[in-house]
Amino acid sequence: MRKFMDEDFMLYSPAAKKLYHEYAEGMPIYDYHCHLSPREIAENIRFRNVGHLFLGGDHYKWRAMAAFGIDDKFIRGQSSDEEKFMAYAKAMPYMMGNPLYHWTHLELKRVFGIDTPLSEKTAPEIWEKCNALLAKDEFRARGLIEKFNVKLICTTDDPVDTLEWHDKIAADASFKTRVLPAFRPDKAVNVNRAGFAEYMARLSEVTGVEIRATSDVIEALEKRVAYFHAHGARVSDHGLDQVPFAEVDFARADKALSQALAGETVCPECAEHYRTALLIALGGMYARRGWVQQYHMNALRNNNTAMFEKYGPDTGFDSVNNTGLVAEKLSRLLDAQEREGMLPKTILYSLNANDNYTLASMAGNFQTAAGVAGKVQFGSGWWFNDQRDGMEDQMKTLANVGLLSNFVGMLTDSRSFTSYPRHEYFRRILCNVIGTWVENGEYPDDWETLGEIVQGVCFNNAQRYFGIEL
Amino acid sequence: MRKFMDEDFMLYSPAAKKLYHEYAEGMPIYDYHCHLSPREIAENIRFRNVGHLFLGGDHYKWRAMAAFGIDDKFIRGQSSDEEKFMAYAKAMPYMMGNPLYHWTHLELKRVFGIDTPLSEKTAPEIWEKCNALLAKDEFRARGLIEKFNVKLICTTDDPVDTLEWHDKIAADASFKTRVLPAFRPDKAVNVNRAGFAEYMARLSEVTGVEIRATSDVIEALEKRVAYFHAHGARVSDHGLDQVPFAEVDFARADKALSQALAGETVCPECAEHYRTALLIALGGMYARRGWVQQYHMNALRNNNTAMFEKYGPDTGFDSVNNTGLVAEKLSRLLDAQEREGMLPKTILYSLNANDNYTLASMAGNFQTAAGVAGKVQFGSGWWFNDQRDGMEDQMKTLANVGLLSNFVGMLTDSRSFTSYPRHEYFRRILCNVIGTWVENGEYPDDWETLGEIVQGVCFNNAQRYFGIEL
Amino acid sequence: MRKFMDEDFMLYSPAAKKLYHEYAEGMPIYDYHCHLSPREIAENIRFRNVGHLFLGGDHYKWRAMAAFGIDDKFIRGQSSDEEKFMAYAKAMPYMMGNPLYHWTHLELKRVFGIDTPLSEKTAPEIWEKCNALLAKDEFRARGLIEKFNVKLICTTDDPVDTLEWHDKIAADASFKTRVLPAFRPDKAVNVNRAGFAEYMARLSEVTGVEIRATSDVIEALEKRVAYFHAHGARVSDHGLDQVPFAEVDFARADKALSQALAGETVCPECAEHYRTALLIALGGMYARRGWVQQYHMNALRNNNTAMFEKYGPDTGFDSVNNTGLVAEKLSRLLDAQEREGMLPKTILYSLNANDNYTLASMAGNFQTAAGVAGKVQFGSGWWFNDQRDGMEDQMKTLANVGLLSNFVGMLTDSRSFTSYPRHEYFRRILCNVIGTWVENGEYPDDWETLGEIVQGVCFNNAQRYFGIEL
Repeated sequence: MRKFMDEDFMLYSPAAKKLYHEYAEGMPIYDYHCHLSPREIAENIRFRNVGHLFLGGDHYKWRAMAAFGIDDKFIRGQSSDEEKFMAYAKAMPYMMGNPLYHWTHLELKRVFGIDTPLSEKTAPEIWEKCNALLAKDEFRARGLIEKFNVKLICTTDDPVDTLEWHDKIAADASFKTRVLPAFRPDKAVNVNRAGFAEYMARLSEVTGVEIRATSDVIEALEKRVAYFHAHGARVSDHGLDQVPFAEVDFARADKALSQALAGETVCPECAEHYRTALLIALGGMYARRGWVQQYHMNALRNNNTAMFEKYGPDTGFDSVNNTGLVAEKLSRLLDAQEREGMLPKTILYSLNANDNYTLASMAGNFQTAAGVAGKVQFGSGWWFNDQRDGMEDQMKTLANVGLLSNFVGMLTDSRSFTSYPRHEYFRRILCNVIGTWVENGEYPDDWETLGEIVQGVCFNNAQRYFGIEL
Repeated sequence: MRKFMDEDFMLYSPAAKKLYHEYAEGMPIYDYHCHLSPREIAENIRFRNVGHLFLGGDHYKWRAMAAFGIDDKFIRGQSSDEEKFMAYAKAMPYMMGNPLYHWTHLELKRVFGIDTPLSEKTAPEIWEKCNALLAKDEFRARGLIEKFNVKLICTTDDPVDTLEWHDKIAADASFKTRVLPAFRPDKAVNVNRAGFAEYMARLSEVTGVEIRATSDVIEALEKRVAYFHAHGARVSDHGLDQVPFAEVDFARADKALSQALAGETVCPECAEHYRTALLIALGGMYARRGWVQQYHMNALRNNNTAMFEKYGPDTGFDSVNNTGLVAEKLSRLLDAQEREGMLPKTILYSLNANDNYTLASMAGNFQTAAGVAGKVQFGSGWWFNDQRDGMEDQMKTLANVGLLSNFVGMLTDSRSFTSYPRHEYFRRILCNVIGTWVENGEYPDDWETLGEIVQGVCFNNAQRYFGIEL
Repeated sequence: MRKFMDEDFMLYSPAAKKLYHEYAEGMPIYDYHCHLSPREIAENIRFRNVGHLFLGGDHYKWRAMAAFGIDDKFIRGQSSDEEKFMAYAKAMPYMMGNPLYHWTHLELKRVFGIDTPLSEKTAPEIWEKCNALLAKDEFRARGLIEKFNVKLICTTDDPVDTLEWHDKIAADASFKTRVLPAFRPDKAVNVNRAGFAEYMARLSEVTGVEIRATSDVIEALEKRVAYFHAHGARVSDHGLDQVPFAEVDFARADKALSQALAGETVCPECAEHYRTALLIALGGMYARRGWVQQYHMNALRNNNTAMFEKYGPDTGFDSVNNTGLVAEKLSRLLDAQEREGMLPKTILYSLNANDNYTLASMAGNFQTAAGVAGKVQFGSGWWFNDQRDGMEDQMKTLANVGLLSNFVGMLTDSRSFTSYPRHEYFRRILCNVIGTWVENGEYPDDWETLGEIVQGVCFNNAQRYFGIEL
């Protein structure tokens, strides 16, 4: 029996261990997509305690606690950080097999140097020990980032954002990690969602563009893309719960816009024209500037109305959808951009792992940029797929129908300052997959190439792909 | 090479063996969903021979025989039990890799103490040996149930059933296994199926409720739910081949009902209203009584018209559907129940394993009952998924996005009195999955917690969840 | 660490090695579906060099090169064979995990006796060595086929083809491999595709049937089926990107035909009637003659319009679709044939592996031919699924819900004369899957039956199933 989570955790062959320890382990982190708060980085916040740090905004943990039957008052409710932490600790042993089990113990180990399994019994001692460390300056937000050798962070920002916190971070030369905004224009695209008209008013105000037609929205967004670009942004992100496509008729797109601005019900077919028009126009803006666009697809959100009314979105009531849109519609959307010569570098993610082969093979249809390895990428296991089986499946699918060696690798996609061990988790899984091939004689023990590939997926491919100066 | 199906069958690590032999093996069986005949239990039937016992009503076996090219007269036709058994035995070695191969040998081993692999050559001796044992009283229906230490059986019963056989079983104190009815109102819900009007007439007759409107059907079913409850039922079951959802308009539901009662074609949209109305109303009845509801989804039935006309349903001509309904529609159906505070404990099954992540993550949206661990459950691999790969996939999916430790575990879902070894099969797979984690240092060797979790999934979770006094 | 691709490559247990080396390795090849050119076989072409041989028409390789960022001029463009081969060799080490990596090295090994891993460094020496061998007569097209002990090849031919090259091959007694045409009438079925009217004119010309109604098309095709039958054909193939089904109304089918012949837009619903009518009629023609029909489903083709306009179809811009049509529609299409007693032997393939359980269980609905083992087959992993994970998944799915032992096994589906090592790849995977079961005590070490099953899947099942005299 192997020791619990020792240095060879999840590495099941000598080749896997060698790849991880000699090539992967020491690589810095390139976190090209996350949901950290730029303000909290700028302010270099201090965490009240480990309850605040671990459970403050992490809906993965909230869901697991709820599934264990814990009263919501200890989850999203008014209980103290300590009560919540103790409730979480009590449930911990029963999260066996869930990635939270490993993430939490990696966080305890790498952030706090704690090797003890967390449980109801060990929780009080761990609570004290963590809190003592969190009182130190090196455990404030930036200290945590630096501890994990993070070279770059791309946050997720709204087009109307002033990026003032990014300015403050950039102005402070003492902080070595590059922190850049990323452009997420979902509110401008989703013409059929509540709050659209108010959002347009705000966009108009920020840009000085009067918004009457789809072309006005595009003009306004172009200004904001330019603004973001000037602030260092090179990445955008789209939440495409439903992938749209229509051969765009601007008259119909304008009709959807007018209806939405007037507070009327938006005709679904016209909305499809509007959304397609915007995505194609935005793709062009990104392509001209060398940006990378990300498409996140097939999420089914806010399924529990009662809890949505109480807590709002992103609080742990989302799940996996199975629309068929990520094949034909996505193909036509990407092709429309490609036909205009304006398909930017693109990363595709689906929350439904059944789409893995669809996406990995779709990416292969648009690899037409000489000199760009993997222009269209099949992204790493997202959200519910961000666990061992999901990551292995993504890696093997990519290898089977594309090139794993080109992969831009892991992102945290997280709201937490302690989620960097997920990169370690990813790297162990990557090295184990490749190491198994080498151990089994399915790939030669050519360590130079192996090291190059592993270090590529850990960091170098992303650096090359995003092309951001560090 | 390991011995064929010895005591460590499917247990591939010392930790797996320890978990199985020390914790799982001795646990009793809680069979909360099956299709055994209460009459046959009440009458404590004797089996003519092992052909009758094994092949009498088991369409899994019939399909495998047909795939082998055996003439239907030896499958569903008029040949003798012995001829059928010999035909089955001849095909047996060629069922390599099919769960029937292991099930049959476990049945021979655990029921009859026979270790010889079944084949054309060994069949005559096995035939004789089994039949000699089947002549003994301890091999009658109840003896078989008791041999496997089954504490509870929930059969599957129609709302109009008198439950007379259940009464007879309950009246006989000599039989220690609790046998309860379960409520399956499909015929009242499926307004667009043949025979609906006749069924409504029968429901009206049994309940004394005149049925003119949807509310009448609900009133009649409420009487039957109460009747079943008085007879100990705490579980319902729904075959939702197509998951319905509409924001219910009772006028349209009534229109569907009227059309069906008049023998007219039922408007599909109105049928959707009717079916949704019934499911929500039934959910409320279950919730108020603390019942568990089961949803079985994505079966595609009666695909071979010629054979359907000859043999009727449930004779081996069903397969896996791939409707997209188990995401958005199911979400809204559960949410509608939750909004009214009337979502009962619910178990979700899909015949299409592509729905696994959709269902396991969906369950997490409705875990809002403080003190109830896993109120909404992602059910064990169903039917075509009730085999090693399918069960492992279900367990790992549940672990990855929910809590395996809360799982209410295995059910037989069978028409056969010798299908209890499927619980052994399930437990070996469970212990092997968890044992691998322990062996690999991915979970600590904390045997107390491990034993608690394993015994939970084997029996204790179900006992707690269903809350039936034993 | 095992040696790179030695004789036990992909065989991970003693039982797997024994099965492969003692039973599988020596079996001849039965290649019942491929895209080799009968003309190139008849002319016994000589290959200019290994660049021509490897990269001449293989879009799998082209896609991998493009994903690596290689300029299209070295892929589909005007560069020399040598430049293209060198570009491919440079990318080779980065194809780690892709089946091309193993296929290419097996091809080098089995065709040319080269054991050196291909890379930029080793490419010049390999280029020279291969080209020297390719200059020899035994490395011409027929030599390559004979080297791999191929007993039968079914090419893929259009109904209007004269089959002249097949005649020439048949007339040459010196070539021992049986080469037969297969019937692929997609152009006659796809009434809504460009070029349909021209195709009908050609069909009319070839058959002398004036085409005004659907029944005329059927009459014309029946003539061609008879013609193909007289030329030895016993197999047909259908590319059903979208599976159609309607309860056929010939008036509507005729309307679709008229529209298409007149160059008008074809009403989608009428096209569904036409396509269904043709598939049912063709099924009857096949059934009466004892043919096998193949359905290839869920491909999404020609996704990159710019490249389609430049290079046409089948050049590496296709991917995996996810239509829901392969469940209900396919069921009704097969049932319609079965109802008329005219369902021929049928092999089902989907490009989307999510359909695996749907297809494998669907096959079980139509196993109604006494004496025909596996009349409806779930076909081997197709195209993007033709790799280790995809093949294992197909085999295990088939075993779990059907009979692996009946499986007609591997086909190359290739345009290349060096793709026969894919049969070796398949056999190693098959023997490893079965060997693991034996090694683990999940199946007895009954070598006679094991050998029979393995040799069945390698060759004998196909020979029995297709019933072609060799």
